[in-house]
Amino acid sequence: MSQPSSTNQSGKIETLTIVGVGLIGGSIAAAVKQRGLARRIIGVGRNLKRLQAAQQAGLIDDCRVDLKEAAGDSDFIVFCTPVDRIVPGIREAAAHCRPGTVMTDGGSTKQRICDEAATALPAGVHFVGSHPLAGSEKQGHAHADAELFAGRVCVITPHKGADKDAVARVNAFWEGLGCDVREMSPQLHDEILAETSHVPHLIASALAATLRDDNRPYTAGGFRDTTRIAAGDEQLWAAIFLSNREALLAGLDRFEEQLSNLREAVAAGNVEQLRELLGRGRANRSHL
Amino acid sequence: MSQPSSTNQSGKIETLTIVGVGLIGGSIAAAVKQRGLARRIIGVGRNLKRLQAAQQAGLIDDCRVDLKEAAGDSDFIVFCTPVDRIVPGIREAAAHCRPGTVMTDGGSTKQRICDEAATALPAGVHFVGSHPLAGSEKQGHAHADAELFAGRVCVITPHKGADKDAVARVNAFWEGLGCDVREMSPQLHDEILAETSHVPHLIASALAATLRDDNRPYTAGGFRDTTRIAAGDEQLWAAIFLSNREALLAGLDRFEEQLSNLREAVAAGNVEQLRELLGRGRANRSHL
Repeated sequence: MSQPSSTNQSGKIETLTIVGVGLIGGSIAAAVKQRGLARRIIGVGRNLKRLQAAQQAGLIDDCRVDLKEAAGDSDFIVFCTPVDRIVPGIREAAAHCRPGTVMTDGGSTKQRICDEAATALPAGVHFVGSHPLAGSEKQGHAHADAELFAGRVCVITPHKGADKDAVARVNAFWEGLGCDVREMSPQLHDEILAETSHVPHLIASALAATLRDDNRPYTAGGFRDTTRIAAGDEQLWAAIFLSNREALLAGLDRFEEQLSNLREAVAAGNVEQLRELLGRGRANRSHL
Repeated sequence: MSQPSSTNQSGKIETLTIVGVGLIGGSIAAAVKQRGLARRIIGVGRNLKRLQAAQQAGLIDDCRVDLKEAAGDSDFIVFCTPVDRIVPGIREAAAHCRPGTVMTDGGSTKQRICDEAATALPAGVHFVGSHPLAGSEKQGHAHADAELFAGRVCVITPHKGADKDAVARVNAFWEGLGCDVREMSPQLHDEILAETSHVPHLIASALAATLRDDNRPYTAGGFRDTTRIAAGDEQLWAAIFLSNREALLAGLDRFEEQLSNLREAVAAGNVEQLRELLGRGRANRSHL
């Protein structure tokens, strides 16, 4: 059972803890401050100097390097660490949370995190997975943006039989930041994101890697746009890819089928076929 | 031999003809006007109403649907039509040009155009291929931009034994528009552009085509950037691909090798290998 005492009558969170105060965590802090959604924000991280800088910048009210300690003081915890550090964080925090504490995250994959989190929670402590579809190749709280989530989709992925009040509080949290919240299963989330995010990232990276140094001066806007996301941190993305392996490989199969059709039309010199395939890509793109 | 009488002492062109007054042709016209590089600009196209609109917009001084007629009045002709219409245009114009007339183009591929143009020219009429690396997925002279070429690379591809004065005039023309002019063989140009432009376009199109309608709301900036160029006109791009078939297929081989390495690292769950490959893509991208 959730504890209504942890939020006041207006739905304001008493103590919000953000674990990982980088671009996403910092932007959550900035948005929460701007919109007055919490009475107090604790930032948790491994680097005290960076946390202190975030505190001086006014993003957080207090900072801790010890997650356990922060967990005991928190009503609502958001994990904004790399995907491979979210479940260890949940495990560490869970044992120290008060009953009624709700945890969520901002991780780019959901099935593995939600499955593992479900086995790590004491009675009365809840986890509901989230993924706000907002971000940037920039890193660090110095790029925090209170408007990062405004108008963006946030997927939440409660497991079957999730506590309804906890789901409602996670929903309300992201809505409070301006998100358009959609609920679906962790599995469906991962299949969709493989198609809309993970496959494009892998492809952008492969494309960037093919560019030979001598040819750099002959790139224009097309190459730059197509490879922009390849500038993302390789540690973060390797972890994302490996936590969504099956859906990513299935998405790559679908991409390679399209590419193979285009390639065959080029090899055969079949202009009609080539126009039809390129027209399909153009039509799909123009709907975005 | 070129005729010095066709340009005045300041290097100003007496009569410049632009064949195809769309985004590129219109932007050349705008830049030439702004920089005072020609005394008169004739626009040639198949659609008289569109040409008249370009004339009313002040981009060109006169318009003709008959290329032969315009050719006889011209000192310098730039073909900005789709790549499959450039050589037919050169053939049509060549027979009516005065000795000393110089022709060039803005086509995205060079070898086929330059090879075929070389067989179509009467004595004293010259063609030197060009490709300014500037453009947009926008179309039409309504998007003409006098600054489109400023600071951009323009590759010129004179054939062996090309008339030196003609090469110098084409060089000066693009430099006059603000380009950084580089000279190379048509073959090398096509190999480089396969890597920096044609392969990325094919891949962006394949990626855009994999997106299922239901998943559209779950795309974010990454998908949009990566597929932006897929919005290009399929007729233009089918012609570009088919006029650079061999280099495009070789470029696709190189891309597929990179993608296959990434795929294997994902399938094997090899985090070290994956980080290394993604790091290579990131490093390459960050140099742009």
